[in-house]
Amino acid sequence: MVIPGWQSLSYFSDENNLCWFLEPELGKEIVRVHKVVGNAVTQDRYIVVGTGSTQLYQAALYALSPHDESGPINVVSTAPYYSSYPLITDYLKSGLYRWGGDAKTYKEDGPYIELVTSPNNPDGFLRESVVNSSKGILIHDLAYYWPQYTPITSAADHDVMLFTASKSTGHAGMRIGWALVKDRETARKMIEYIELNTIGVSKDSQLRVAKVLKVVSDSCGNETAKSFFDHSYDAMYERWKLLKQAAKDTKRFSVPDFASQRCNFFGRVFEQQPAFAWFKCGEEIVDCEKFLREEKKILTKSGKHFGDELSYVRISMLDRDTNFNIFLHRISSSSNSTL
Amino acid sequence: MVIPGWQSLSYFSDENNLCWFLEPELGKEIVRVHKVVGNAVTQDRYIVVGTGSTQLYQAALYALSPHDESGPINVVSTAPYYSSYPLITDYLKSGLYRWGGDAKTYKEDGPYIELVTSPNNPDGFLRESVVNSSKGILIHDLAYYWPQYTPITSAADHDVMLFTASKSTGHAGMRIGWALVKDRETARKMIEYIELNTIGVSKDSQLRVAKVLKVVSDSCGNETAKSFFDHSYDAMYERWKLLKQAAKDTKRFSVPDFASQRCNFFGRVFEQQPAFAWFKCGEEIVDCEKFLREEKKILTKSGKHFGDELSYVRISMLDRDTNFNIFLHRISSSSNSTL
Repeated sequence: MVIPGWQSLSYFSDENNLCWFLEPELGKEIVRVHKVVGNAVTQDRYIVVGTGSTQLYQAALYALSPHDESGPINVVSTAPYYSSYPLITDYLKSGLYRWGGDAKTYKEDGPYIELVTSPNNPDGFLRESVVNSSKGILIHDLAYYWPQYTPITSAADHDVMLFTASKSTGHAGMRIGWALVKDRETARKMIEYIELNTIGVSKDSQLRVAKVLKVVSDSCGNETAKSFFDHSYDAMYERWKLLKQAAKDTKRFSVPDFASQRCNFFGRVFEQQPAFAWFKCGEEIVDCEKFLREEKKILTKSGKHFGDELSYVRISMLDRDTNFNIFLHRISSSSNSTL
Repeated sequence: MVIPGWQSLSYFSDENNLCWFLEPELGKEIVRVHKVVGNAVTQDRYIVVGTGSTQLYQAALYALSPHDESGPINVVSTAPYYSSYPLITDYLKSGLYRWGGDAKTYKEDGPYIELVTSPNNPDGFLRESVVNSSKGILIHDLAYYWPQYTPITSAADHDVMLFTASKSTGHAGMRIGWALVKDRETARKMIEYIELNTIGVSKDSQLRVAKVLKVVSDSCGNETAKSFFDHSYDAMYERWKLLKQAAKDTKRFSVPDFASQRCNFFGRVFEQQPAFAWFKCGEEIVDCEKFLREEKKILTKSGKHFGDELSYVRISMLDRDTNFNIFLHRISSSSNSTL
């Protein structure tokens, strides 16, 4: 991508759009990629762009919380949940919202916000809301609902859906996410949050994401070369195959079993192959993170940060090949000696 | 600037820097431009990059507020103050900090944060802290401390200083600001805020700001062509000359009088020529914003949003030539008819 020095000076991208800081080209490519992949409904949705889906999560909390004196509203999610959610929800001690913990054990009356991450970070399973109440307001974090990670079984159709460039194409450094929002007033308040928080979103990165998504969508219509998703599916498939084999061979740890489903995008049946492995140490090990760090020289994130047990850790399946191979070697070696 | 598709994928920019999401090239060019212009001390300072200085302002509040049970701490600034400050301070009803109003009338005991904007938005005057207490924690917003707006009389040397690309070179759409911070722990907590708020800052825009600042600094050493600051100084000078002349001719409004000072950067004496005109309607007009809107078809922002009187409005001096000329024509015309 080439950006001339005089380009994108203004705060504004499109004064006629409710989301006045959304670059029109990006809006167009977001609609197109969802249509090509079939993973989300975009018709009659407001698109809100954010500085990563992290900012959009906070924008959604701001938009969905009551602004009267009844707050703060509880925000819950089923454990294991993304470890940053409690931190992001509580770091400003907001009077609008607060972390309410594990949705499975949530029992309070009154309105609450439930965060549904599907496929889930850290464990990769598909999720639906669990709190059995009509007063729940839902936010769907669909960062990983792309065909390199999971079969696309239908076009997601929820009130507030969050996506991000960092997990769809891997461009984390661009810090661009987007929300697809049904309700105009919710979208308006999310936009208001982003206006107050950062007065819009980097235009340079928006234009770059537009270009990247265009290339990805174009690749899906090209019959003479592998598409972006074919390529990344194959990479994920290979890694999960190796990890599962290592689990079987060593018998000292396990990873989740996923059911096979038919993917409408690829037109074939396969199992999930998530961005993270939710890795469980064998019975004899109480603290998996400590064991891997001390005995195997592998740095992971303990299950406790995700509202779960110490016997679990989260392991990234998206690291570079050399790192992934060292990781495989270390967990496979029967001795405690390391590379 | 050219960005290849594979570049800047990672969240990380420099794992050895406290500010791990700061692009090293940008850090280098920030130090260089302050050295060239002489407007701020950078030696022994931590540089924290943000999504505009708006995010850095919030990062500073997070860093400087007590996180024990004593909060929220009051945040004050002398009126007229930037109209967004109260909104940004209060929109999340934080338990850490809250807007405390005009610093001139602030009388409470105990710690507080005072925000010093110099040159000031909206009125362009140079500012110092006004609350007479040893318990004040200061944030200096120096967005407009550049030689196209004001004489550079010394290198600013405060604990927390905020700058932004949008006011130094005009690239608002990049959403990049930076803070120069003396204290390591303050910088660390500002970085923590940005990590929780947006997991870093767009790399594409950081690299572009690095390039823009490099071109600006290079232009200052070029003896055969006008520097960036010469060029923008001349543009501001011309506009202020026309506006002052219109005030003199019509006698129906006034703009501030500024004292001349010697600028170390240009090596000559001149008056401030701020990015905004703090425009006062004549005695006979109570509500200046309403008068300009209804009688002159000029949209402005009322003094009331800046903690000041209705007889004032803020007018941007940075709009495009065609808009500025229409504005001049409309305020100069003695009749109420408009273009």
